[in-house]
Amino acid sequence: MALTTLIEYNAASPEVRAVYDDIMATRQTDWINNFWKALANHPPTLRRTWESIKQVMAPGVLDPLTKEMLYLAVSAANGCEYCIASHTAAARKAGMSEAMRGELLSVVGMACETNSLADAYQVPVDERFSRPA
Amino acid sequence: MALTTLIEYNAASPEVRAVYDDIMATRQTDWINNFWKALANHPPTLRRTWESIKQVMAPGVLDPLTKEMLYLAVSAANGCEYCIASHTAAARKAGMSEAMRGELLSVVGMACETNSLADAYQVPVDERFSRPA
Amino acid sequence: MALTTLIEYNAASPEVRAVYDDIMATRQTDWINNFWKALANHPPTLRRTWESIKQVMAPGVLDPLTKEMLYLAVSAANGCEYCIASHTAAARKAGMSEAMRGELLSVVGMACETNSLADAYQVPVDERFSRPA
Amino acid sequence: MALTTLIEYNAASPEVRAVYDDIMATRQTDWINNFWKALANHPPTLRRTWESIKQVMAPGVLDPLTKEMLYLAVSAANGCEYCIASHTAAARKAGMSEAMRGELLSVVGMACETNSLADAYQVPVDERFSRPA
Amino acid sequence: MALTTLIEYNAASPEVRAVYDDIMATRQTDWINNFWKALANHPPTLRRTWESIKQVMAPGVLDPLTKEMLYLAVSAANGCEYCIASHTAAARKAGMSEAMRGELLSVVGMACETNSLADAYQVPVDERFSRPA
Amino acid sequence: MALTTLIEYNAASPEVRAVYDDIMATRQTDWINNFWKALANHPPTLRRTWESIKQVMAPGVLDPLTKEMLYLAVSAANGCEYCIASHTAAARKAGMSEAMRGELLSVVGMACETNSLADAYQVPVDERFSRPA
Repeated sequence: MALTTLIEYNAASPEVRAVYDDIMATRQTDWINNFWKALANHPPTLRRTWESIKQVMAPGVLDPLTKEMLYLAVSAANGCEYCIASHTAAARKAGMSEAMRGELLSVVGMACETNSLADAYQVPVDERFSRPA
Repeated sequence: MALTTLIEYNAASPEVRAVYDDIMATRQTDWINNFWKALANHPPTLRRTWESIKQVMAPGVLDPLTKEMLYLAVSAANGCEYCIASHTAAARKAGMSEAMRGELLSVVGMACETNSLADAYQVPVDERFSRPA
Repeated sequence: MALTTLIEYNAASPEVRAVYDDIMATRQTDWINNFWKALANHPPTLRRTWESIKQVMAPGVLDPLTKEMLYLAVSAANGCEYCIASHTAAARKAGMSEAMRGELLSVVGMACETNSLADAYQVPVDERFSRPA
Repeated sequence: MALTTLIEYNAASPEVRAVYDDIMATRQTDWINNFWKALANHPPTLRRTWESIKQVMAPGVLDPLTKEMLYLAVSAANGCEYCIASHTAAARKAGMSEAMRGELLSVVGMACETNSLADAYQVPVDERFSRPA
Repeated sequence: MALTTLIEYNAASPEVRAVYDDIMATRQTDWINNFWKALANHPPTLRRTWESIKQVMAPGVLDPLTKEMLYLAVSAANGCEYCIASHTAAARKAGMSEAMRGELLSVVGMACETNSLADAYQVPVDERFSRPA
Repeated sequence: MALTTLIEYNAASPEVRAVYDDIMATRQTDWINNFWKALANHPPTLRRTWESIKQVMAPGVLDPLTKEMLYLAVSAANGCEYCIASHTAAARKAGMSEAMRGELLSVVGMACETNSLADAYQVPVDERFSRPA
């Protein structure tokens, strides 16, 4: 048994169904993953989070594959099991090959290593890095 | 005063200088940033970290700009001030526009938000996300 | 010099000014804190983040003081200097006394301690904790 | 099989039993959750942690429900599965409704998002936030 | 100006002075570092934290130098500037040479790298690692 | 089913087998744990990570037991389930008793608590802590 009731489509309120319908239409799919079924316990969070994700992950100056890889990298750094699984799947669907996944995760690992070293040695930021573009 | 002595080129041992020389040659630049001057207090870490970074950040199936943006995303998730500054600079040098930086950081922010929500609701991983490619 | 240009009201586009005006009206204040001036470099993030914060922090079944204290607790757990400072100020303004701050931070500290112990001992979740409400 | 032996009451030393007895008396319950059975492998940690928790979580200028919600918020930010489960249960027992849980977690999510944005943009702390009460 | 008033000995209550006196006597020193002067804003936290630290850091089956190095490693992993500085100083005082510091931090860095890789690849725990001693 | 294919020895390429052989020879064992079987999906990461671990964890000015305990402490602070399990096993093999494990984890817990308190109170670093050795 889990900590959170997952709200299935058939048991959902019209407000929740409207979000589910928009998720499926936007993603051109016919199912809803568990993350949204959990958020549906608090409809304002479901709606707000979905609207934000839809806006943030839409193609812009960065393409969808790059965005999914960034999402995966952050989820790996934070150690979030669910988001690692869902965004590995999403990045693969957007075109991430296993070779790309390997390179991506090697960057994540190096960044985590050097982040801890820079913190631990208390390296002062170089003056030329402290500038706006 | 800082916690760590920064080892300048003139004060460096031949072993450290050899790494500094390789950093400058590889990056086609004439200066060494503080991170390496701090690591130089432990030459095996300086050498190993540089060799790893050089391999990981070389162009592969991912291009250098994508790699720098992934590095920045992880550094932001980990809240490492030095690495955020240095990899913002590196990503800009590799071609990241301010519009790209804005989109990148919006993805980082959303990932951090949904990571905490997925953890907090203890969302079970969907069966179809739990598969190798 | 800082990594990010802060966009002042006078230098802001009409789109950014509209958000600034709404922040000041909602908070009944006449100034804009640096967080928003930094986000203004990416107007969609400025607008989306403000709309989200405004919704999330509005009084609901939790009162504004409780919400500010929760925000501070999370910021402390994440070690975010800016957010600790700004939400300590906001919680004080909402009524947090120094005695309340002391108790709040003692809870944060204990939670961080027991979080690491529960992880390190790999304590299995008790069956009776694994239930929806 | 788990990494850590859970010490049951019947197998416990008198020193450990004394702590178990105090936990049950203080909480007016007749069972011990797994966290304490794991800590019992190191009796000084069991005793010290329990004495600290008992003091920190006692009613003070903050009420028990607020304290449990703060504990849950920090555990969510840290992604600790055990503590999220146990303090969701404790907060519900102390009166947290599902609507309150929803609002609480929306604050946690927003805080994690803005924490990463404030770090990533390296927003300087406003002078008026840098003051003691 | 800082967010927190530091309580100096001369301005401290008898309750706070008693803790300060015990810190100085235990450490055989004549000064109090800022961490305790900040905690003194909430005397119960000052007393409880000091009593815990005194017990935890006392020589036991691990010697004081090992304990200080473990403290530093955790502080580096968490990116806590204050604790990195204070426990680097404490570990040096307890006998940590610069060569030992270098090796210690190389372990911290590798652990942060492989932690993120193990999370990102969702490596299942080997059956023989899942056993109590 | 898991997110990542584990590459068994029999199915491995010569390049991967060479690393596996070196792992078994170095560790004087006849099996490969899952971490390496996962990294084998990206042979350059497998090779580089193994070479780094082999160098970092070799006896130096710190002995192997101290290094394993530091590795475990960082993994606990980061909440990495796999690395906590594997390095608890490795530290036990290197001589960590259960009493030592108990003391080690009590230090980890205290460090996480005081890290969050030092961050939350924004304690300024004492001048005498801000010095190189």
